Formats: sequence, structure tokens, C-alpha cells
Amino acid sequence: MNDPTVAPSFWVSQFCRPGDFEMHGGDIDHVRERYQHAPEPWIDLSTGINPFPYPIPPLPADTWSRLPLAEEEDKLRLVAAHHYGADDPDRIVSAPGTQALIQVIPRLIEPTTVAIVGPTYREHMRCWKRMEHTVREIGEVNEIADAKVVVLVNPNNPTGRHYTPDRLLNLAEDIASRQGLLLVDEAFADFLGAEQSLVPLKPPSTIILRSFGKTYGLAGLRLGFAIAEPQVASLLRAWIGPWAVSGPALTIGRQALEDTGWLIDARANLANAAQQLDKLLVGAGCEIIGGTTLFRLAEHPRAQSVADALACNGIHVRQFSDQKTWLRFGIPATEALCRLEAGFASLPPAA
Amino acid sequence: MNDPTVAPSFWVSQFCRPGDFEMHGGDIDHVRERYQHAPEPWIDLSTGINPFPYPIPPLPADTWSRLPLAEEEDKLRLVAAHHYGADDPDRIVSAPGTQALIQVIPRLIEPTTVAIVGPTYREHMRCWKRMEHTVREIGEVNEIADAKVVVLVNPNNPTGRHYTPDRLLNLAEDIASRQGLLLVDEAFADFLGAEQSLVPLKPPSTIILRSFGKTYGLAGLRLGFAIAEPQVASLLRAWIGPWAVSGPALTIGRQALEDTGWLIDARANLANAAQQLDKLLVGAGCEIIGGTTLFRLAEHPRAQSVADALACNGIHVRQFSDQKTWLRFGIPATEALCRLEAGFASLPPAA
Repeated sequence: MNDPTVAPSFWVSQFCRPGDFEMHGGDIDHVRERYQHAPEPWIDLSTGINPFPYPIPPLPADTWSRLPLAEEEDKLRLVAAHHYGADDPDRIVSAPGTQALIQVIPRLIEPTTVAIVGPTYREHMRCWKRMEHTVREIGEVNEIADAKVVVLVNPNNPTGRHYTPDRLLNLAEDIASRQGLLLVDEAFADFLGAEQSLVPLKPPSTIILRSFGKTYGLAGLRLGFAIAEPQVASLLRAWIGPWAVSGPALTIGRQALEDTGWLIDARANLANAAQQLDKLLVGAGCEIIGGTTLFRLAEHPRAQSVADALACNGIHVRQFSDQKTWLRFGIPATEALCRLEAGFASLPPAA
Repeated sequence: MNDPTVAPSFWVSQFCRPGDFEMHGGDIDHVRERYQHAPEPWIDLSTGINPFPYPIPPLPADTWSRLPLAEEEDKLRLVAAHHYGADDPDRIVSAPGTQALIQVIPRLIEPTTVAIVGPTYREHMRCWKRMEHTVREIGEVNEIADAKVVVLVNPNNPTGRHYTPDRLLNLAEDIASRQGLLLVDEAFADFLGAEQSLVPLKPPSTIILRSFGKTYGLAGLRLGFAIAEPQVASLLRAWIGPWAVSGPALTIGRQALEDTGWLIDARANLANAAQQLDKLLVGAGCEIIGGTTLFRLAEHPRAQSVADALACNGIHVRQFSDQKTWLRFGIPATEALCRLEAGFASLPPAA
């Protein structure tokens, strides 16, 4: 806080560095402002959200009107436990998006040493640093040294690198033996099958995050899960607090997680769309260097020009400030694919 | 945490007392379990939620599918600033329900002395105590003594006691002069008119909470606001984090807060329904000792028997463990009123 007259001295010190507070992400509105002549509607390929959303079912009126019930949350956790292979609903924490969990977890632990396997989703780094932890980015899990907390995204965003569950179980056991914490963000694991997830192995001293919004194409709904040993899950639930997940999210989430047929179809649709995207990207001079079912990481020598050309065509893709030749593309639905092709075609020839 | 093998020693100590973690509230499901022969559907009069909900408008598909946009949140805050009389959207924090804010605020302040004007909504006491603050319940604001933080609900839940904005402005100035914080929960102020709210007076060192769900009968949507000086509001926004409010809540919230005609009609409907409730309660031997537009506090010598009789008829009302003769009734819609009348009629005569 800058002004002591409005900032009582008792505000907890680490929350008071204004530099940490800027919002970011979900930045299509800022891009729209910068490229005012671009055609509407914008196509946002800057995120890894399924472009084929789960259909919103009719919602009973009281889903909106009354407070969410504890029994509704219990049922959602039961379904999630089954869906993710955790078995026990006591291992499940439901939250209004995994972002809420990414913010909370660093606050529950006294400042300590944290190793984040990078490059990865930058909210992890931001949230641990903000709470005065000593954070190091490492390139591989074998570089963790004596870090008490290890954070990794598996499969990784944006590179797609994937550690096997067995490898991570070993890591979890190692970390547990020195009373540490392993945080595995499985935001992009839903389409890989349970055998690629760490959840069924019930690793010790581990919190695993699963994103509902990305997989089901419902990022606006705000729903995500943490999976952990029952006592840690109970701690997280207490911190997230009562009525955190909305009535519509409880209802839609439960229905979607039980709908295994939809997930199988979605996987096929995404694989098909990803194949078309890959073809287009390679044809346009990109090299595909990574990805998951929900995005592709591409390298292009003139990535900035590509991003500009696409933005002029109302298409937003993710750039990386420290990897100037990288571009990340969400999987486009059919009509978006046509516009993407036109966008690449408008790229001026290299000087 | 009970078991050190699953509870790393570095978990922050004050989050690790299991006794604090039990969930509660929104407890209609537990009551339903206890009175299994009661007729369905249950009528939940245990909360103060408007029984005439704001109609859910058609929602564009992308409200659900994409991440909420910063510009949508900005627009909601602009509308809220106007609606609540705060003028400046920089003074507004939107959150997934005021409960999220009630939990967050005690975490942002180093452990200090807190006076809560009671009896009142118990989540305030619970959340301050949990964070190791020294909390006292007082009966009137003139008993704050040297407390650094003062918490009150205005008008109060459940008593309906209301301090004038001028009185609270004086209090805020007094608290500001010793670098404290005044937290005023105006959850039940929406139907009183702006001149009964502290918001337009822009008090120093004050956070004011406003509940969207109660007033608009959309408690399942999860939307609430804090109003504070811009720097404090910025701190709260950073803590609440990005994408905390769902797409549907951003869209519906904005539309509802702009709909002044609906609010005027709702006030008239509620006043009418409250009048009918009052008549029924008095006729049934209750004395009405407090209330707001959204609930009535009644005294009855056999309050426990009344609550039982109503529960056997599928009607849930709020009891108070430390005031055995009190019952709080949410305002019933017409069909609920008939069942309430029948419920009272089923009360066995006094022994």
C-alpha cells in the first residue's frame, strides 16, 4: 500500500506490494482494444479450452435461487472421485476454478523452498513468490535438490512434456520422506486416460489439480478440483469455505463428469481438429514442438509477425516473452480453422 | 492436522485445528434427513433470501464457455458503483459471494483486537477467531473500547437493529484516527434506500459488504461485493484473484443491478408478503421483535415446539442456540405462506 493514511499498518506485509497486484490473463479484451480494425467476433486461441463445449442442460430454477447445498457438493465430490480415479470423495476438494486453488495453496504453508519445473503456467510462480516462498525454476524433476515443495504441470503447458505416473509416485515418496509437498497440475490430463494420471496411485504428500472448465469447454462456469490425502483435502475445503461453487456449477459439473460417452466423443472431435490444425500449421511454416489434446506449441522464425497477422484477422494466439519464436494455439473448431488459414495467408513475405 | 505423517510440519499452524473446519449453514439437507416424513418440497425459511428471484435472462453461449473477461468485470463494477452509491468502480470488489470476502478480510490483517457488535451473523466471529485475532462480542458500538477492528451488520441479522450512516461515519473516523478498520456488512440494506447506507458517505478505513444473492433471490449464483477505499479494494481484488466471478454471474449481475424497476417492484412484493407473515405470526402467538425487508425475528415461549411442528410440515426456520425463544423467518412467497399457516395449526397445545 502506498498511502499509510488509507493503509492501516496492520495489513499483513506480504499482501501490500502493489507490484504484485496487477491482473492478467483472459486478455482477449486488451488485444481487441489494440487491434481495433480486426473483424469480429474474435477467435481466442490463446487458451487451451475445449472449443466443443459440453451442452448446458436445462437448470431447475432453485439451482440459481437457493444457496448451494452441502449434499449437492458431496454428490459432486463423489462423482469426481470416481471420474478421476480417486475413489474416496474425502480426497476431493471442489473449488470455483483451479485458479482459486493455485492461489490458496502457497498461503497454507510457511515460507519455504519451492522448485517449479518450467517453463510452465506462470500463475504457479506468481502465487508462490507472492507469499514470500523462495522459488527456483528448474528444467527437470531431477533438479529439485532439497526443495521442500515441488510444482509441475503434467502434461506440461506449453511444452506437453509428460512424466509417467510411476516416475511421479517415486518423486512423491521422496518428497514425503522429508515432509515436503508435491503439487501436480493435471489441467490437461483428462483426455489421456486414467493410466496417465497420478491420481489413482494415491501418492503421499501430494496435491493434484484437475480443471473442469478446460476439458468441458466451460471456463466461464468456474469449477475445478484438488485431489489429496483426506486430511489435506479437509484443510483445503475449510480454506475455500462454504458455498464457494455455484449452484449451476454443482449441477452441470456432476452431470458432465458422469457423461463418459460425451468425453469419448470429445476426445475424437479434438483429435480430428488437432490433426487439421497441425496440417495447417506445418503448411504455414511452423514446426510443432509440443502440445496436448487441447493445444499445440509451434515454433516459427517470425512468430511476432505471425501473431500480428493473425490479430489483424481477429485471431488471438499466445506468445511467450522469453521464447520469442514460440506460439501456442488452442484447438480451433471448424469455422475458426478457416479464419486461421486466411490469417496465415495474409502474412507478408519475409523481408 | 492430527496425523503428522500426512501433515507436513510446515502447514501454517493456525489453519490446522480440525475443530474449526466443520462446514455449516445452508443446512436444509441435514434437516431433511432428520425429518424424513415431512412433505416435499421443503420450504426453507431459515435464510433471508428474497423468495421472488430476479428472472434469469437468456445467456449467450460464450458466457459459459470462455474465461470471464476483465472488461466484463470492469463493467459489472461500474454498474455496482452506481447502484450502491460508491461512484467510483475502483472502490468496488466483486467476489463469488460475500462469504468469500468474510473469509478473506481477517487473513489480510496481522492478529489484532476485534469487536463484533452482536448478536449477529456468526460467520464473522468464526472467521476472525480462526485467524488468531482476539475477538470480543459487544452489545453496542459505544462499547468498542480500544478495539482495532470493529465489525457490525447493518441492519443487523437477526435483530434488525440499524445504526444511521452518520453515526457510523463518526465511528469510521474515530477508527481511522487510530489506523483501525471498520467492517460493515450491509447484506440486508438494499431495500432501505441509499440514504440508509454508509456507502455514499465514503467513510475512511472502512470495508462495506453488499450481498447480491439475498436481494435478487439468486443465492446459487454466488455474487457479492466489497466497497472500500481504492487501495484497499485493489488489495482485496488481488487476493480474490482473477476469474473469481463466473460468466453467468457477471452477466446476470450487471443486468439486475441496472434494473431499478425490478428492485422497486420487489420491495413492494416483499413488503406485502412481510405484512402477511407478520399477521400470521402474531395470530400464532409470536411476538415480532425485529427484522428487515428479508426476514422477521419472532419470539415464542415454545419456540422449539414450533420449529419441530413446522419441520414435520416440511418448513425449515432458523433457531438460535443461545436464545431459545427466538425464531427467524425468511419472507415466504404465497404458497409457502399457506403451508406455514397449516404448520402452525399443527402445533400441539401447551402441556
